[in-house]
Amino acid sequence: CGCKAEVEARVLVINTGGTISMVPDDKGLTPEANKLVRSLKNMPQLHDEAYAQEKRLYDFHEYPDKTLVLPISKQNKRIIYTILELSPLLDSSNMTPEDWAKIAKKLEEHYEKYDGFVILHGTDTMAYTASALSFMFENLGKTVVMTGSQVPLYELRNDGRANLLGALLFAGQFVIPEVCLYFYNKLYRGNRVTKVDAGSFNAFSSPNLPPLANAEVDIKINWDTVWRANTKKKFRVHTNMNRNVGLLRIFPGITAAAVKAFLQRPIEGIVLETYGSGNAPNNREDLLEELKKATERKVVILNCTQCLRGSVTTVYATGQTLADVGVIPGGDMTPEAALTKLSYTLSKSELSWEGKRQMLSENLRGEMTVVPTGDKISLRDS
Amino acid sequence: CGCKAEVEARVLVINTGGTISMVPDDKGLTPEANKLVRSLKNMPQLHDEAYAQEKRLYDFHEYPDKTLVLPISKQNKRIIYTILELSPLLDSSNMTPEDWAKIAKKLEEHYEKYDGFVILHGTDTMAYTASALSFMFENLGKTVVMTGSQVPLYELRNDGRANLLGALLFAGQFVIPEVCLYFYNKLYRGNRVTKVDAGSFNAFSSPNLPPLANAEVDIKINWDTVWRANTKKKFRVHTNMNRNVGLLRIFPGITAAAVKAFLQRPIEGIVLETYGSGNAPNNREDLLEELKKATERKVVILNCTQCLRGSVTTVYATGQTLADVGVIPGGDMTPEAALTKLSYTLSKSELSWEGKRQMLSENLRGEMTVVPTGDKISLRDS
Amino acid sequence: CGCKAEVEARVLVINTGGTISMVPDDKGLTPEANKLVRSLKNMPQLHDEAYAQEKRLYDFHEYPDKTLVLPISKQNKRIIYTILELSPLLDSSNMTPEDWAKIAKKLEEHYEKYDGFVILHGTDTMAYTASALSFMFENLGKTVVMTGSQVPLYELRNDGRANLLGALLFAGQFVIPEVCLYFYNKLYRGNRVTKVDAGSFNAFSSPNLPPLANAEVDIKINWDTVWRANTKKKFRVHTNMNRNVGLLRIFPGITAAAVKAFLQRPIEGIVLETYGSGNAPNNREDLLEELKKATERKVVILNCTQCLRGSVTTVYATGQTLADVGVIPGGDMTPEAALTKLSYTLSKSELSWEGKRQMLSENLRGEMTVVPTGDKISLRDS
Amino acid sequence: CGCKAEVEARVLVINTGGTISMVPDDKGLTPEANKLVRSLKNMPQLHDEAYAQEKRLYDFHEYPDKTLVLPISKQNKRIIYTILELSPLLDSSNMTPEDWAKIAKKLEEHYEKYDGFVILHGTDTMAYTASALSFMFENLGKTVVMTGSQVPLYELRNDGRANLLGALLFAGQFVIPEVCLYFYNKLYRGNRVTKVDAGSFNAFSSPNLPPLANAEVDIKINWDTVWRANTKKKFRVHTNMNRNVGLLRIFPGITAAAVKAFLQRPIEGIVLETYGSGNAPNNREDLLEELKKATERKVVILNCTQCLRGSVTTVYATGQTLADVGVIPGGDMTPEAALTKLSYTLSKSELSWEGKRQMLSENLRGEMTVVPTGDKISLRDS
Repeated sequence: CGCKAEVEARVLVINTGGTISMVPDDKGLTPEANKLVRSLKNMPQLHDEAYAQEKRLYDFHEYPDKTLVLPISKQNKRIIYTILELSPLLDSSNMTPEDWAKIAKKLEEHYEKYDGFVILHGTDTMAYTASALSFMFENLGKTVVMTGSQVPLYELRNDGRANLLGALLFAGQFVIPEVCLYFYNKLYRGNRVTKVDAGSFNAFSSPNLPPLANAEVDIKINWDTVWRANTKKKFRVHTNMNRNVGLLRIFPGITAAAVKAFLQRPIEGIVLETYGSGNAPNNREDLLEELKKATERKVVILNCTQCLRGSVTTVYATGQTLADVGVIPGGDMTPEAALTKLSYTLSKSELSWEGKRQMLSENLRGEMTVVPTGDKISLRDS
Repeated sequence: CGCKAEVEARVLVINTGGTISMVPDDKGLTPEANKLVRSLKNMPQLHDEAYAQEKRLYDFHEYPDKTLVLPISKQNKRIIYTILELSPLLDSSNMTPEDWAKIAKKLEEHYEKYDGFVILHGTDTMAYTASALSFMFENLGKTVVMTGSQVPLYELRNDGRANLLGALLFAGQFVIPEVCLYFYNKLYRGNRVTKVDAGSFNAFSSPNLPPLANAEVDIKINWDTVWRANTKKKFRVHTNMNRNVGLLRIFPGITAAAVKAFLQRPIEGIVLETYGSGNAPNNREDLLEELKKATERKVVILNCTQCLRGSVTTVYATGQTLADVGVIPGGDMTPEAALTKLSYTLSKSELSWEGKRQMLSENLRGEMTVVPTGDKISLRDS
Repeated sequence: CGCKAEVEARVLVINTGGTISMVPDDKGLTPEANKLVRSLKNMPQLHDEAYAQEKRLYDFHEYPDKTLVLPISKQNKRIIYTILELSPLLDSSNMTPEDWAKIAKKLEEHYEKYDGFVILHGTDTMAYTASALSFMFENLGKTVVMTGSQVPLYELRNDGRANLLGALLFAGQFVIPEVCLYFYNKLYRGNRVTKVDAGSFNAFSSPNLPPLANAEVDIKINWDTVWRANTKKKFRVHTNMNRNVGLLRIFPGITAAAVKAFLQRPIEGIVLETYGSGNAPNNREDLLEELKKATERKVVILNCTQCLRGSVTTVYATGQTLADVGVIPGGDMTPEAALTKLSYTLSKSELSWEGKRQMLSENLRGEMTVVPTGDKISLRDS
Repeated sequence: CGCKAEVEARVLVINTGGTISMVPDDKGLTPEANKLVRSLKNMPQLHDEAYAQEKRLYDFHEYPDKTLVLPISKQNKRIIYTILELSPLLDSSNMTPEDWAKIAKKLEEHYEKYDGFVILHGTDTMAYTASALSFMFENLGKTVVMTGSQVPLYELRNDGRANLLGALLFAGQFVIPEVCLYFYNKLYRGNRVTKVDAGSFNAFSSPNLPPLANAEVDIKINWDTVWRANTKKKFRVHTNMNRNVGLLRIFPGITAAAVKAFLQRPIEGIVLETYGSGNAPNNREDLLEELKKATERKVVILNCTQCLRGSVTTVYATGQTLADVGVIPGGDMTPEAALTKLSYTLSKSELSWEGKRQMLSENLRGEMTVVPTGDKISLRDS
């Protein structure tokens, strides 16, 4: 044809399952294999069959029956996307570190052939997976956008189509070399989010970092916030995450026995969800003794707050005590980021125990805020 | 004197400790006994010494050296308040069910002599204590307001004075027969709040229920939301809370061994913090087996979501599975409310196991939303 | 066919123009006649052609070429909708009181034949039109939902389809006998909204009244807030709105000459946008004199605040002064509601001047909050 | 004395009146001269008499009876502040451009002698005055903080003391060389705010720019946002603001006669409050003719949106039309900033008409966002 050449971008979509592609059965909603591509082919908003035919898309692509193309944009941009599915598709409640590895390897396998990546995932554990992948992807140089939905995209009214479309547009048009999470018109850093609402389209929050981008009438990217890896190293994935980790939430009356039980072998590290700015009982010798014994046998304990927003500091006597028994302050990391960072760090067998502790204190992928000196005045001291 | 008679109200303030009355020492901030009353006497905003002298307040009150009086209001209202302290004062991180009982008994001891009650408490576990007291106070007929602050009221700039003043005004002027929590100009139902911000004055959120009242330029009370006990029974406190309870947060890769360890004797009940609308892995036979074995030996498992907002339902296959092994859906209760309700219910020795399970499913103190039939249409089915 | 009978609902969509159906031309975006129905026929999310054929929809309906049908819902509900267009289609900036009358008459003409109504309208003046129609529709007994979008529904990523779909679902499934406005998953009372954001999908706010409904994962209707007309009278439309009205915003240094010019004949009523709680200069004899002269010649002046939230009261000396010269306090009405209420009231020729002033002070369609006695305590007096 | 030398800072407080220092009379609240200093002397939170005596503060200061000192901070900082009052004190509804000049001259008179400045002002027109002063202060090199309150600081519960304290701390401790506005724990750029709530302590919003600083538990300053004047020129005030300016809000059905009347001599410039992204009727030849005639006789018309958030652009045909008749796009300026910028620019008699139009299009004091090229993609074109 004589038309002006359009710019094409290729995006790989890895479908892991989740509500976005679920169908109802007699036990509730469950995922169904191979249904998504077929369905999308009948949604003109998400696939332009005429273009596919004209360009003989199916003749030239590696996965002809899994490849779709978005309608053209005014800028003559075309996003061609290929959907590969994990097998089996999973409700994200069933997602495990092994599945993280499967996702990571799938992406690595196709890393060079695509301009960007979208990962479809259930919302329930998406923040965990996004955090995990952010660490597992070393030297990432392309955009990875996780998304999903609260309501399946087959439903009459749903958030799935808009989320998929937005994720494809970010993955295909911008270089934001992070594991991002796109939901309800916002692009977040993946290891900063947590699911805060089980019943709203606005399901995620990034409590301690503003969104990377807003996609409303205009798409506005906060380039100052986008993570810059400052590396020329080759992309690779790290998959052997350490599974001997756990999350332990402190509560009034928690017994030393429960803590001891939770810290027993084979546990190598835990995230301790403490109160407020990182506080735990400092008058409970039994509890502290258990924590101390654990750190002495080289269990790593990372201190995160139960509060949605805020950071672990050592203003209070009760917080200081934890540091005294060897607990590492986790700053403003989410529990999801802290847990997966722990899993990642502990699997770095080349590191000493001190090296691992040091790594946990550093900002690896933008997952925590390193407070610059001198930019704030604590009111508590004023 | 010849002046028009003023209306006086008496409020008992129980000071348990917490940041509001803390002073710095070399390990951070710690509470100091007997300092609060002395300090308040020098704050004209919170004490009117001239009135106290004129009315010979110190001659007539039971605790002359612990009694203060707010400045007069335009309505000629006077709030006379007496501050009793727990000993020792506690950082709220150190608060235990035994301390809840001490607070409850102190309040019960003075219940008849005062018009309303204020409980000063650290913010870290205030949501736990407020939830616990809401159950422990049976047939409550007077206003109980918990408050505290993020910055000690001795500091130059602080939220402690405004929080104390607001709590006194609610306790002394309105009959809101609930355990409330007052913070940053809002009055919440105590068993609905959770601490969401470690660094902001606006530290609490009531994610699934609007505030009971806003106190900005005007005080506006949402009377429709205020809890009505519908009882003429006598107030009493229930203090022997069951301590064999725990909070267990599900995360990807959690091991059956960890769950088993956590559920071991003497545990009698746990709150399971699940994903989204109450989901947990349903393909993990090992995990489910542990939960099932626990319920079979009559451990009560209450299902709450990890999400800040939302409710446990059974739309998903993964959620249904939990119900199948005997887990009780916790609706939209906060983890704090669920844990303390469990502790309260399990201590009702007159109840059978089924009776306890039934009680946990009911709305006892406004802690959960009972969804009326027909008021919503699920989009997932539309 | 032998299938189970489905429940059908008929909705009339009146398309007045606006961004939702606009296409770009060389001067920007403009509306194009007759394009919307054709486009929707190719959007499976918004039209089920197979059903239309099966049911011979086009044989039985009054406007076969303008009628579409939504895909079936799980409840076996079918919404059949017919789109009638005003001619010409208008950018809402060009909307006038004459156009309001055209919309109202069109709806009246078809009132009996449809179960509910959707009005497509540009966002710029949608709050004005929604307010006007709320008064013009007397004894309304069916649901009327206005909507539109920030981005045309022909665009790749847009808010138009979701807004249209949501509006149809409310109009076809619920009896909310008000002029509502649906936008970004919220249903508002039409005379309570104002456009607050020119660049976000979340363009509208209802500052002084919570939404009537939220449509996220579930549709939740706040039935307590829905307006109950308490009338058995027949529906009718009032179209001869008085056009001799205006909006005048006070600002520091406004001259008496400007006010005088604005109040000159043929003006019969104005909304005075004052400061804060309804304040205007009370030391400007020249200004006050102009206002007084105007009210003396029976120009009606209605006092609304410039603030997004809040209500006109008379706490301040500067507010009291306005009342003294005959200005009517407008409570918490939006400027849009106040202006159109003025236009409506002044056209009631059967009313005396005092009758009109009285009508303006009353809550006609839920457009203002009538403060019940005793539910608040003003802090300013405490 | 032998104690370690404390660092002192001197702040001048210019009290113009407003609710913060008002007392009730029979017509509502009114300001009372000379009351504020006397009252503050009895508020230990805001004045340390012992320190004043020890340091013989009253012997060494220019205004001994108007000078107070804040309690010491942990950093050994002392803020000594002197309160000068305008006469008469004004309810801010009565504030005029003449009063802006009085404030500006008072500040200029004392500019060299103080480290920072606080201006107490009523909330009703504070956004107008803050905007005006931001232009009138040329080459400002010191911190100026405007504040006030919703409830007088004499009241039992009030926001006045916290606002005054916060303003003093910013003015005395940081160099933020702007006219700021401090309210409810946030520091805003003065020409970016608007009063959005008549009944809440959180009265102001800065819709198109994040706050300059948050003062919660910690004071966090967003230094990237703070305005940098890049000038070494000497501070001076420009006071002869042009008063022949006005604000005209477009509404449906506005008559050409009303517009003509508003634009008549001596008007030299107006802010036209348009719809959405800067739209006005483009099919109303009569209206456009009046605007065109006005610009032809060199009346300057600046286009701002009625929306709280957003910016004037020319995406729509209806917006383009205004540009065609000579109206200047006002970007994302507030009406308050636009009006006072107009008043400032028109008074620059050394500038030609084109020079004034050019100046209005430029960002003078951070009052508008200059959109950098390439940072967004308009969805409307995608």
